[in-house]
Amino acid sequence: MRDVAIIGAGSTKFGELWGQSFRSLGIEAGMKAMASAGLSGEEIEAIYIGNMSSRFIKQQHIDALVADYTGMAGKHVASTSIEAGGASGGVAFRQGVMAVASGMHDVVIVGGAEKMTDLDDDSVNEVMNGTSDADWEAGMGISLTSLYAMIARRMMADGIATREEIAACAYNSHYHGQFNKDAQFRKEIKLDTILRAGPTAEPLTMFDGAPISDGASAVILCPLDHAKRYTDKYVKVASTAQASDTLALFQRDSITSFGATKAAAAKAYADAGITAHDIDVAEIHDDYTVAGVMALQDLGLYEKGGKAFLDGDTKFDAGKIAVNTSGGLKAKGYPIGAAGVSQIVELFAQLTNTADNRQVPNAKYGLAQSVGGTGSAVTVSILEAM
Amino acid sequence: MRDVAIIGAGSTKFGELWGQSFRSLGIEAGMKAMASAGLSGEEIEAIYIGNMSSRFIKQQHIDALVADYTGMAGKHVASTSIEAGGASGGVAFRQGVMAVASGMHDVVIVGGAEKMTDLDDDSVNEVMNGTSDADWEAGMGISLTSLYAMIARRMMADGIATREEIAACAYNSHYHGQFNKDAQFRKEIKLDTILRAGPTAEPLTMFDGAPISDGASAVILCPLDHAKRYTDKYVKVASTAQASDTLALFQRDSITSFGATKAAAAKAYADAGITAHDIDVAEIHDDYTVAGVMALQDLGLYEKGGKAFLDGDTKFDAGKIAVNTSGGLKAKGYPIGAAGVSQIVELFAQLTNTADNRQVPNAKYGLAQSVGGTGSAVTVSILEAM
Repeated sequence: MRDVAIIGAGSTKFGELWGQSFRSLGIEAGMKAMASAGLSGEEIEAIYIGNMSSRFIKQQHIDALVADYTGMAGKHVASTSIEAGGASGGVAFRQGVMAVASGMHDVVIVGGAEKMTDLDDDSVNEVMNGTSDADWEAGMGISLTSLYAMIARRMMADGIATREEIAACAYNSHYHGQFNKDAQFRKEIKLDTILRAGPTAEPLTMFDGAPISDGASAVILCPLDHAKRYTDKYVKVASTAQASDTLALFQRDSITSFGATKAAAAKAYADAGITAHDIDVAEIHDDYTVAGVMALQDLGLYEKGGKAFLDGDTKFDAGKIAVNTSGGLKAKGYPIGAAGVSQIVELFAQLTNTADNRQVPNAKYGLAQSVGGTGSAVTVSILEAM
Repeated sequence: MRDVAIIGAGSTKFGELWGQSFRSLGIEAGMKAMASAGLSGEEIEAIYIGNMSSRFIKQQHIDALVADYTGMAGKHVASTSIEAGGASGGVAFRQGVMAVASGMHDVVIVGGAEKMTDLDDDSVNEVMNGTSDADWEAGMGISLTSLYAMIARRMMADGIATREEIAACAYNSHYHGQFNKDAQFRKEIKLDTILRAGPTAEPLTMFDGAPISDGASAVILCPLDHAKRYTDKYVKVASTAQASDTLALFQRDSITSFGATKAAAAKAYADAGITAHDIDVAEIHDDYTVAGVMALQDLGLYEKGGKAFLDGDTKFDAGKIAVNTSGGLKAKGYPIGAAGVSQIVELFAQLTNTADNRQVPNAKYGLAQSVGGTGSAVTVSILEAM
């Protein structure tokens, strides 16, 4: 198996981008990633795209759409679209790594994109709730938000995290979001603002959930020993792992921990030959605050995830394991298919020492965790500075 | 890159299966493939699924659904769902091969499934038309059938094939369908029946298009040098290639040939170290008769595709290159995501000399071609008897 490098990365701004289409967003992110790698489109052999739902834009065959509108269809580049709910971007990244590792392709672009704001909120929520069990959860009227609210209740009842500690996950993301010029929300917020906001599913409020967003991200991969042909700024993919769990939350033994995160993390650490203690910076899937708390614990990054957020241990300059320096899904924005790829974009910046005003000092190992549904699919990827 | 073997294969019956759900179909195909390989689920490390649209069953996250309902979520098996229109199954197969070739996984199951008959015809067609360009084709009211009708008109006008030769593709599929107990249609039909059937988009009639179907197929992959641990009946994956083209048909220089088929075929032949003349049996994507005619020509299997069908050269016992011995999409049925995988199931039978009453004598090389949209995504895979 060949070692794989990331040689370029780029994102559009995330937000309510009324003036941009799915097509234009994908092109912008791809062009930025290629510019960052010093590549022309001519060298790209394969495209992988994370996209959560064709229902948002009523277009199937996103693979062909992207090949076409990036001009790659002219030379018949292989293009593949992956759907794994919120983990779509993370799974697409792993498939891209596999394509290079296998020797089937040399230069691969992995993109993630979603255009969600062209539908009304009810329709968007209907599609998103489709990532839970359509027959036994969504079909019975339960929403993703209410599933995560149940997790929060259980966590609080079991003494795993207090309401304030859970809310602190959103505080941490908004704190970092102020430094990221591409983030949807760029304002620090007070813990009190989160706690007193309108309830969505109690105990969660408006500020416990990531926003509905448009946006796209892309990264370029090649064999590690080709990387220097293109750039001096590259990062090694130390490992990438993926795990599944039951589609419905009620079928699990525990709902305050995601088994798929633990399984993927164990594999990713083993394959990279490191432990959680070696990680310097992590991008985790905070689509809900409570998911962020679980992530820190299931990944072994912090024993008490909520406390780490509340104590500020997760800030980029705290000298501990920095978390969601990009602003996370909560403040950076959550165009679903782009999320997992945007995490890699942030880690690429951190590990090439180009993260500007939010640079984690001497970052050597970065970890990205991408989650679909209520932990039904999880990818964990570990990147290493070169 | 490791060589990859197919060690087991299985399909459900295809058809209007009112009594079965998406979930039960997937399980049945998977169990048959595992039984064929002499494997238990314990050994499977990863799942790849071809599925065209979550819109048919209002369920996103098909990856997690399949992991869950096959019992694989219990051990957190990596599960990945691929959408590429009609090529979904072909692309899923190629990703499964990559997963083994890369060394990331040893035993992988590739499945394809679609449950289409729970929606009314209008809704099914709306989803299927979504594989054309949503903005510039489907959005303007054109259907896939009418796009293929335009191709037929052009072929006839240019003297590439006569109406009778185009229709003969369906005759060939129905002829073979009578021998396949899992096929949706098991009756030989007369050429005249095709020509005189009700028009859908002239010159095409009801019999020029594949049916709407439910069904699932699955195959098991492992490294070639592990195959003998499981079974004596296995097949080598000689190569697998994938290519894209513009999403919209009108953007191409020619509409009587698919550039993506040609590009994928050239790569597949080169990687396998053979030419089209070495192929003994081919499963090609005859969602429309006219697509079948193009396929034979673009793959280099026959210079005049329509004439080959009309002359009966493509029959399993004609001693030439046998085509669609399974009944093809036209007679076997077309549960979209399953189609590309069901082709591999048929070739596995042919190349392990277990195709019973439709066995192609001494078949050494088999080729599968899977197509999305109007040739916007194409995979070509070549299998070799061991």
